[in-house]
Amino acid sequence: MSTDHINRRGFLAYSAAGAAITSTPAFARSAWGSERQSKGSEMARPKAIFFDVNETLLDLTSMKRSVASALGGREDLLSLWFTTMLQYSLVSSAGGQYEDFGVIGAATLRMVARNNGIDLGESDAKNAIMPIRSLPPHPDVREGLQRIKSAGYRMITFTNSSNAGVEAQMHNAGLTDMFETRLSVEDVQMYKPHQHVYAWAARKIGLEPHECMLVAAHGWDIAGALWAGWRGAFLARPGAQLYPLAPKPEIVVPDLSAAADRLIAMKA
Amino acid sequence: MSTDHINRRGFLAYSAAGAAITSTPAFARSAWGSERQSKGSEMARPKAIFFDVNETLLDLTSMKRSVASALGGREDLLSLWFTTMLQYSLVSSAGGQYEDFGVIGAATLRMVARNNGIDLGESDAKNAIMPIRSLPPHPDVREGLQRIKSAGYRMITFTNSSNAGVEAQMHNAGLTDMFETRLSVEDVQMYKPHQHVYAWAARKIGLEPHECMLVAAHGWDIAGALWAGWRGAFLARPGAQLYPLAPKPEIVVPDLSAAADRLIAMKA
Repeated sequence: MSTDHINRRGFLAYSAAGAAITSTPAFARSAWGSERQSKGSEMARPKAIFFDVNETLLDLTSMKRSVASALGGREDLLSLWFTTMLQYSLVSSAGGQYEDFGVIGAATLRMVARNNGIDLGESDAKNAIMPIRSLPPHPDVREGLQRIKSAGYRMITFTNSSNAGVEAQMHNAGLTDMFETRLSVEDVQMYKPHQHVYAWAARKIGLEPHECMLVAAHGWDIAGALWAGWRGAFLARPGAQLYPLAPKPEIVVPDLSAAADRLIAMKA
Repeated sequence: MSTDHINRRGFLAYSAAGAAITSTPAFARSAWGSERQSKGSEMARPKAIFFDVNETLLDLTSMKRSVASALGGREDLLSLWFTTMLQYSLVSSAGGQYEDFGVIGAATLRMVARNNGIDLGESDAKNAIMPIRSLPPHPDVREGLQRIKSAGYRMITFTNSSNAGVEAQMHNAGLTDMFETRLSVEDVQMYKPHQHVYAWAARKIGLEPHECMLVAAHGWDIAGALWAGWRGAFLARPGAQLYPLAPKPEIVVPDLSAAADRLIAMKA
């Protein structure tokens, strides 16, 4: 990562192809200054890496297909539904409530359907999102995880999915053995990016916040982690955006393979 | 409201025309039983009525027009942007942060634009949402507010907009004099539907939660109010949906005129 690419106007610099190429890492900037932070190999390794699951590791395409089908083929409504599901996961936490992510997903799918004149029953909505339990990993994931693991990192999944949900997801994706444990927000009954959830996860693993790094393809998750004092690696998958009003993570790369390169280069 | 219309399957009953006609009021159900709760005139009046502002009182059409224009005419992205703005208002609160609603609106508009290959600068994004300060009231609003006021109710605006924002909104809509005061989440630095915000608002007005009623055209706002122990009146404006996983408010009507009828019929 070269300082040439650092965009000082507070927003990501993008390559001509539209992929995020770099950002100003607020963490590194204060700790090492702009010269040293520009060389990933000189940064100290985090003591554990927490991986978000949905979209970060697993490819949501098959679920999007079944949800679009339930919406009468309206693929244009998929982003709205997924965003509404995330909104209501936080509505739930803000209201002191908790329901499984899948339950919120089905309820919000019915709301989006109804707003668009589509009659969708409760069981049809649940069936439409059921493929979330058997998603394949993105093509870069298995190799990327293997290389990070071989480099000696502690690796943990950390997801808004329920315990049963992420267990099935990891089993079906053949990734169970890659991780030392799985953390679900179900145990703390509050959704990411609530600050308490990151504090809880760090304590569960026995680490201080600044020793933890989150890998995620969601701007809101990276924002929450950095606000909680964690380090972050953002995977700029298609449709993913960093939140312009949050600090920038030290790693912004297109996929997990590129993230692995950066992590392996860090001094142990 | 007739008990014939009560849908016992936990979701709104809808008329053939698609407008919400009634619901099971969880508050009234436990307090009065199904026979008595069916007659609004027998319910006691709330001691104050808090009105959400955006969409509930004011018509967002002119802002949607300027936002769609900033998105290159992509009206199909408006719901996604508005939902993303609401999502990130809660991301911000979950992360212990606070930025004005307008600032979050502009930041999320840039995210939605970028995800759709539209280059939108910071000042253009801010200009696109500027019409939020000069929205007209919905056609039913002035008359409805006047009748509720004439019936002797205490009336307060309670909004996610900033103090300066809602002051300008009320002035430009010619509604300032309808309300005894304005409450903005800016003062508590946390967005609705966080429980603390409703508790704060009730205390500011000197009331217990169960003495307060929220009027809103947002399912998440009504959900938050009911979870906080308030009463609720949902305006089922086009595109508005109650949240299926929350208790149902005692009043579900198409607009403020119909809500006024119900409120005036309550015993003083």
